[in-house]
Amino acid sequence: MSEGTLQVSSRVDDLATLASQLSPGALVTDRDVIDSYASDKALFCPAGRALGLIRARSVDDVVAVMRFATEHRIPVVTQGARTGLSGAANAIDDSLLLNVAGMNEIVAIDPVNQTCRVQPGVINQDLKTALAEYGLSYPPDPGSVAISTIGGNVATNAGGMCCVKYGVTKDYVRAMTVVLADGTVTKLGRQTAKGVAGLDLPALLVGSEGTLGTIVEVTLALKPALAPPITAVGIFPDTASAGRTVTEYMGSGASPSLLELLDGPTVKMVNDYGDFGLPDDVGALLIVQSNATGGGAVEELEAFQRVAEANGSSEVFVSDDPADSEMLVAARRAVGPAMEKYAHTRGGGELIDDVCVPRSALGEFFEKLRLIDAQFDVEVATAGHAGDGNMHPSVVFDAGDEAQVAQAQEAFAAIMQLGLDLGGTITGEHGVGFLKREWLGHELDAGARLMHTQIKDALDPLGILNPGKMFG
Amino acid sequence: MSEGTLQVSSRVDDLATLASQLSPGALVTDRDVIDSYASDKALFCPAGRALGLIRARSVDDVVAVMRFATEHRIPVVTQGARTGLSGAANAIDDSLLLNVAGMNEIVAIDPVNQTCRVQPGVINQDLKTALAEYGLSYPPDPGSVAISTIGGNVATNAGGMCCVKYGVTKDYVRAMTVVLADGTVTKLGRQTAKGVAGLDLPALLVGSEGTLGTIVEVTLALKPALAPPITAVGIFPDTASAGRTVTEYMGSGASPSLLELLDGPTVKMVNDYGDFGLPDDVGALLIVQSNATGGGAVEELEAFQRVAEANGSSEVFVSDDPADSEMLVAARRAVGPAMEKYAHTRGGGELIDDVCVPRSALGEFFEKLRLIDAQFDVEVATAGHAGDGNMHPSVVFDAGDEAQVAQAQEAFAAIMQLGLDLGGTITGEHGVGFLKREWLGHELDAGARLMHTQIKDALDPLGILNPGKMFG
Repeated sequence: MSEGTLQVSSRVDDLATLASQLSPGALVTDRDVIDSYASDKALFCPAGRALGLIRARSVDDVVAVMRFATEHRIPVVTQGARTGLSGAANAIDDSLLLNVAGMNEIVAIDPVNQTCRVQPGVINQDLKTALAEYGLSYPPDPGSVAISTIGGNVATNAGGMCCVKYGVTKDYVRAMTVVLADGTVTKLGRQTAKGVAGLDLPALLVGSEGTLGTIVEVTLALKPALAPPITAVGIFPDTASAGRTVTEYMGSGASPSLLELLDGPTVKMVNDYGDFGLPDDVGALLIVQSNATGGGAVEELEAFQRVAEANGSSEVFVSDDPADSEMLVAARRAVGPAMEKYAHTRGGGELIDDVCVPRSALGEFFEKLRLIDAQFDVEVATAGHAGDGNMHPSVVFDAGDEAQVAQAQEAFAAIMQLGLDLGGTITGEHGVGFLKREWLGHELDAGARLMHTQIKDALDPLGILNPGKMFG
Repeated sequence: MSEGTLQVSSRVDDLATLASQLSPGALVTDRDVIDSYASDKALFCPAGRALGLIRARSVDDVVAVMRFATEHRIPVVTQGARTGLSGAANAIDDSLLLNVAGMNEIVAIDPVNQTCRVQPGVINQDLKTALAEYGLSYPPDPGSVAISTIGGNVATNAGGMCCVKYGVTKDYVRAMTVVLADGTVTKLGRQTAKGVAGLDLPALLVGSEGTLGTIVEVTLALKPALAPPITAVGIFPDTASAGRTVTEYMGSGASPSLLELLDGPTVKMVNDYGDFGLPDDVGALLIVQSNATGGGAVEELEAFQRVAEANGSSEVFVSDDPADSEMLVAARRAVGPAMEKYAHTRGGGELIDDVCVPRSALGEFFEKLRLIDAQFDVEVATAGHAGDGNMHPSVVFDAGDEAQVAQAQEAFAAIMQLGLDLGGTITGEHGVGFLKREWLGHELDAGARLMHTQIKDALDPLGILNPGKMFG
């Protein structure tokens, strides 16, 4: 018997001990089930062979897992709905998958203080639906809003279409309960509107991708229900003119509640996917909404129309019909599945990038993106949160063709480099995970890299919290 | 010659070496000048005897100080305008005072991206004035707005009257350049509207009170110039009814741009200090403003009037005259000097507390605050940012009377305990510093305390960054 086998046998015995400390049935050792939980939605990120899967039902379950992991020096990968796009939730060899999607209770909704407390597995849209009954809203709306969890949203600082007016997940996180690497349970942050008692530890945990602790409860600040928007669509001959429109419009102090861009190839894919009433044969579309009250929305969309036309838009449609608004947002939300369908016909490869550049650089970004598209033997189709400068160029390629795969990876990297060259970031909202861990080192300077390592080592001295993710 | 004297002689020689590495005249060794920089505005916080004062003029100066401090294991206390209220900027024995108030350049204002880059010594109001020329605003407005620095505002996560609608300092910080304990210069954060590349290190530095690094440049997000507000004043028989009004009004989803409370004793002090048109003999006043556009402001103040009257307000005045608005804000801003003047007549003692409670608890907070006022042989006068639940009860006492001093300290502590008992925090915006370092341990649980220590030790292994502040 080899040493390796011995070690595994001993670990299987240990797992039986762990099982006895968990909610009944929480520990899964069936290989097929474990492996079915091994990946999130990122491409080119390896999924390791986990020792076991824990479908946690309670904070006690999480504590038991972390104590066990600390005792046995076993890596732990915390997961929610595994809708991430960076491989952060992917299994590591000989790790435990700690899935908290089943901890999905809305603990409390407090209309007076306009806050709520939720477990990490609550689905974003489910929370929105529950809050609507109280006339409240939780704005952050990542593309995965219907299927992703609040815990995952917090762990990745998720964004979405609302950010241009309403900010990102971190702007809503007041407090959280976290299970630390050694199983200690701690409450971080505050329940109040303001507070400066000590370091802002919730802010450190937001976006930490499971590398510093496991979030088991979150207190979120809420807003009153958002006013319904009116919508405009601008048609452009090319992405650069659309980009310049965004630069000028946002620079004028406009505060749209949504400002999304779809380039020509993306519009084609969406039109092939379903009928959302989009025009065909366009260079680019901008969808813009305003929910300003008291006539402000009309003013804001009229201003958009002026700026768009001055920058070469051939036509701007404005509508205050809620059905049109819903249809256009549905079209934007259809970009993901439409691209997936299209990529499937081209060999299945699709790498979604997520650079964010200063809004002043959008015109130049699109001009240079066209050069990247021309340089590599792949297709690049782009949609994104233009109002924030946060663009998602998708590289579509034949995943079965080695040369295409290499080209796709080079194009993907060239897009990130372009983002950095324009003073931007390699990731506006998708996170680092495994996919961009080497690239994080390009974005951060030596001091920032050292601070990351120092904080990681301080809070996770055994290196058991999602090792190999984020930190290259 | 004693060992102590030897050590001091050697340090004086060392300081000469340091001086040669700094901008000409940056190092001050004149004892009187050093001592005149030894304190911020907090009471009951000891000021130590610093070795020297460096009036830094450049990042290089800060780097030289930190390298020197690391080499010689000398504590460094970073300071701005020393307007803080927690003793965070107070000298420590044998420390270096690193004053960055002279690094006061507005490096860049970027109207297109609505950001600016500023050195830490820029005065908040000076930045506001410069931005107004571009039609831009930086909302955070601590009471010290006319005299405090952006660096200090960031290091303490300063708040103010705008927070109820526009948030606090941390909501505006995108990036910063920091000099770490060993003199390493690092850029943290991003210039873009969104970004999730790595841990949110700027958020960790915001509010860190000089314990993790020295901030030498900040990139701030800006807003378009704020719309001018209209104003209402509600008169109440007591603070509890005013508190209940705030709870109900804010719970209705109102979004006032200012919602301040002054209790009866405070109103008296302000009226003794100057004529701001405030009524006399009131239990409490609420000042509320709305700058909602398109008729929204009038609606919001009418709603306030209804809620106030339903909760016992005897009268609500509404005005859309900008002069009235300015006068009332001036009255609120006069609370500080008015209390100081009053306290002077009572023996000079004034301890300003800074608890923040959930808005739902404001009624109960005021009821119990009255009991504290009655229990101790001191006067308690309260003003504060009621819309955020962030109240500043001031304990006024005879600083020359030992018994009164003891009573004042007990009352001060009782107010913090009341804040904690109601689910609040010991500090909404003033910070921990020296004044509340023991209390931080009461607010944080064991896990959070450990995380603080781990992070502090990781980023400042020699313990030279403002030691003894924040961490008890």
